[in-house]
Amino acid sequence: MCSVTNKDVGKMDTFLRQNEPTIQFLLEMVDILTNYVKKTFDRSTKVLDFHHPHQLLEGMEGFNLELSDQPESLEQILVDCRDTLKYGVRTGHPRFFNQLSSGLDIIGLAGEWLTSTANTNMFTYEIAPVFVLMEQLTLKKMREMIGWPDGEGDGIFSPGGAISNMYSVMIARYKYFPEVKTKGMSAAPRLVLFTSEHSHYSIKKAGAALGFGTENVILLSTDERGRVIPADLEAKIIDAKQKGYVPLFVNATAGSTVYGAFDPINEIADICEKYNLWLHVDGAWGGGLLMSRKHRHKLNGVERANSVTWNPHKMMGVPLQCSAILVREKGILAGCNSMCAGYLFQPDKQYDVTYDTGDKAIQCGRHVDIFKFWLMWKAKGTIGFEQHIDKCLDLSQYLYNKIKNREGYEMVFDGVPQHTNVCFWYIPPSLRGMPAGEERREKLHRVAPKIKAMMMESGTTMVGYQPQGNKVNFFRMVVSNPAATQSDIDFLIDEIERMARDL
Amino acid sequence: MCSVTNKDVGKMDTFLRQNEPTIQFLLEMVDILTNYVKKTFDRSTKVLDFHHPHQLLEGMEGFNLELSDQPESLEQILVDCRDTLKYGVRTGHPRFFNQLSSGLDIIGLAGEWLTSTANTNMFTYEIAPVFVLMEQLTLKKMREMIGWPDGEGDGIFSPGGAISNMYSVMIARYKYFPEVKTKGMSAAPRLVLFTSEHSHYSIKKAGAALGFGTENVILLSTDERGRVIPADLEAKIIDAKQKGYVPLFVNATAGSTVYGAFDPINEIADICEKYNLWLHVDGAWGGGLLMSRKHRHKLNGVERANSVTWNPHKMMGVPLQCSAILVREKGILAGCNSMCAGYLFQPDKQYDVTYDTGDKAIQCGRHVDIFKFWLMWKAKGTIGFEQHIDKCLDLSQYLYNKIKNREGYEMVFDGVPQHTNVCFWYIPPSLRGMPAGEERREKLHRVAPKIKAMMMESGTTMVGYQPQGNKVNFFRMVVSNPAATQSDIDFLIDEIERMARDL
Repeated sequence: MCSVTNKDVGKMDTFLRQNEPTIQFLLEMVDILTNYVKKTFDRSTKVLDFHHPHQLLEGMEGFNLELSDQPESLEQILVDCRDTLKYGVRTGHPRFFNQLSSGLDIIGLAGEWLTSTANTNMFTYEIAPVFVLMEQLTLKKMREMIGWPDGEGDGIFSPGGAISNMYSVMIARYKYFPEVKTKGMSAAPRLVLFTSEHSHYSIKKAGAALGFGTENVILLSTDERGRVIPADLEAKIIDAKQKGYVPLFVNATAGSTVYGAFDPINEIADICEKYNLWLHVDGAWGGGLLMSRKHRHKLNGVERANSVTWNPHKMMGVPLQCSAILVREKGILAGCNSMCAGYLFQPDKQYDVTYDTGDKAIQCGRHVDIFKFWLMWKAKGTIGFEQHIDKCLDLSQYLYNKIKNREGYEMVFDGVPQHTNVCFWYIPPSLRGMPAGEERREKLHRVAPKIKAMMMESGTTMVGYQPQGNKVNFFRMVVSNPAATQSDIDFLIDEIERMARDL
Repeated sequence: MCSVTNKDVGKMDTFLRQNEPTIQFLLEMVDILTNYVKKTFDRSTKVLDFHHPHQLLEGMEGFNLELSDQPESLEQILVDCRDTLKYGVRTGHPRFFNQLSSGLDIIGLAGEWLTSTANTNMFTYEIAPVFVLMEQLTLKKMREMIGWPDGEGDGIFSPGGAISNMYSVMIARYKYFPEVKTKGMSAAPRLVLFTSEHSHYSIKKAGAALGFGTENVILLSTDERGRVIPADLEAKIIDAKQKGYVPLFVNATAGSTVYGAFDPINEIADICEKYNLWLHVDGAWGGGLLMSRKHRHKLNGVERANSVTWNPHKMMGVPLQCSAILVREKGILAGCNSMCAGYLFQPDKQYDVTYDTGDKAIQCGRHVDIFKFWLMWKAKGTIGFEQHIDKCLDLSQYLYNKIKNREGYEMVFDGVPQHTNVCFWYIPPSLRGMPAGEERREKLHRVAPKIKAMMMESGTTMVGYQPQGNKVNFFRMVVSNPAATQSDIDFLIDEIERMARDL
């Protein structure tokens, strides 16, 4: 590494010496961070220390968010860092159940620290040789798990599932109407997209952004478990065609955000084949189940999809952000997105420039999201991810079994959940005798927000709630944190019951 | 922090003990990373240790990129990490001049390590209270620097300048044709966008993605310094209107990618006002100059823009990724992008939900890009950024002065560069006597790639090259790394001359 001759050794040493205190600063930071990590796994630590926006804005003792012209001392910077963590939320805490992404994987964390130290950019092999190859190999491995022959195809890591889903709509449009790239949407007929009423809102967002219009994103009806009804899809395709619109794209969700539902991919794929439509599978949340021999059948038919979104930062515990869009047809990503900017992607480089990825992205610079995932895969092996996923699904079934017949609980849908989502109402004692009707609905609608507010004020646990369709606010419990155990599930139930006692 | 009663202390201790080796692992990683940081600043270390893709794929000694079913030992994981760094590129090295983003700021790095440890998501105040407020305050500060009254307006950090520019086109369309959100592009007339032929390709990419079509992105002519000619803009607006098209949006570049040119914003703003067009300023590269009292005049008129892209990860040395889209009109970002997903953004939370940012983004989950920037601003103060920027511009002027009359150099354009971009041809001795003409052009076109390949093979320095318009390959030198000094500039010149001696 040190073979370069140079004449600046004296100056360089001075520079290095000047930087010594800053390396020292880095080590003091590491001390703060490792303490934080240890406490995160310590159940006697709160999940959060809640303050309202105005409280933090007014400034907590010694913690001032305002920026100024003058520098602060390094000592103050370290205090700021401690306070930033103190008033934040411990998303790795074993009792944090609020989001689809949770947990704090040490290997993944180390990977992310290395990534920020390397501080490079994915657009060319030239400046990210190792990371570009890791991305290529990992995407191939993911395509093999999807079941595409020899893992052939294409793909890219993007800044989250919403952008991955947006890619899928873009490439579907490019496949059927490539002239839209140059001529705009006026070169195509009125195109319509189909997705479940339970699907993630990013499909609608993509419809708005890409110039389709949200009215042309047609929502499909689902069964009581939140799964698309294939007959409804076919009826709506026929209806759209009769109106003179052109069906283009169907999104099947593998693991919906609220119910954790898996749409029947094979039946949907049959319809897509019949009508020649692009089939996308949004497995942002459920894609991880492909790693589990026990659960991967829930995605049966995924190998028939044209594109798949899969977020390792959700079910697989990879630190944020880590989302992949995988595409069955090779070359179409570049075809759709390339602009051939000569100043970035020079064809006359000395290496094989097909490894440069920048021109297939909608981004220019692209953060290195691959390394932490690659490193976790190395450290756990596929079987490690499988164990993690099976454990989380077991835990959520433990919760389901515990509350399905328990006094004060009503399940939002019947039967064992397909994913780790367990959706339920807690009925406080005061509502238990009340007859069904608008008054009870209104009162029940306010229960989950009240319990959630108490949870956040006391800081003991966090779980999400939301309404869905005509259903009033209910809790959506999810497990993706490998640190969670049955005792944490028990704790959550105790907390809900304790807090709701007087509601 | 430790006030929660719980009954699991025994189990918890076990969990913690089990995790001790992993904290140890983290510390061993820190050791690898701090060594890497120290060496990065050491000029006797190579910038890179180049290998071709096939070499790395075949596997270097003990470094195998392939993923497997079975886990690797932690020892091997540490070796993998060392190798990942070994075969990568030191973008913080004082002699790395290849990209607009370079340098390795220790405070920014520490900030990014904290961010990954906190591992949360920007979409709600609920799970990122401190980061959400930091983003809000920092965006306000940036708007103040732009010159919008009281720093009012809106904005968001996005995954890079290309996405920030895409936002600007989306909100311009929403401002003038809000019905496109629901009805699609067919609800609007044929819309056209204007941007310089020297501008970043992301404007064209946005045109393709959002359904305008690249043919409706009209390229503006520039003067010999790469700056838009306002009269050409007006002529092209008039021409488009005569054809029945509807001009919508003008992008003015503040700091172009290759020449570092600043378009004359005030003159462009006059035209935008006259024709009622949205004015966007792409200051991804040049926005940082707003921090410098000496150089901010180059962006005069930026306060008249409707939106501004500004990437602190470029000129301000913030680690990747850190890009902001700033908008003068409040509420329009949310108006453009909101889908009101009830399961994410519950209106009945106990805190002021106007702090939730998710519904104004095109993403759902969003990486925390703010903290490292906020922390650097705290540690440096505005004056620290100013010093950094002034120093980089001084250094590039040093290079310009050194080579403008030096034998063997030809400047691509005359006069002191506006930004740190210095564009030049190196003419090897064998070409110096050759008459102008196609043969000389062809030979000269091959010089920069050859020198670049030699640089990469020897690993001593890196600088970018590209063709532009009808100009054959030339070097584009940029300085954004605070560690670079005059001696590094001298070194670069020596290296080029040494390598090109026999070309």
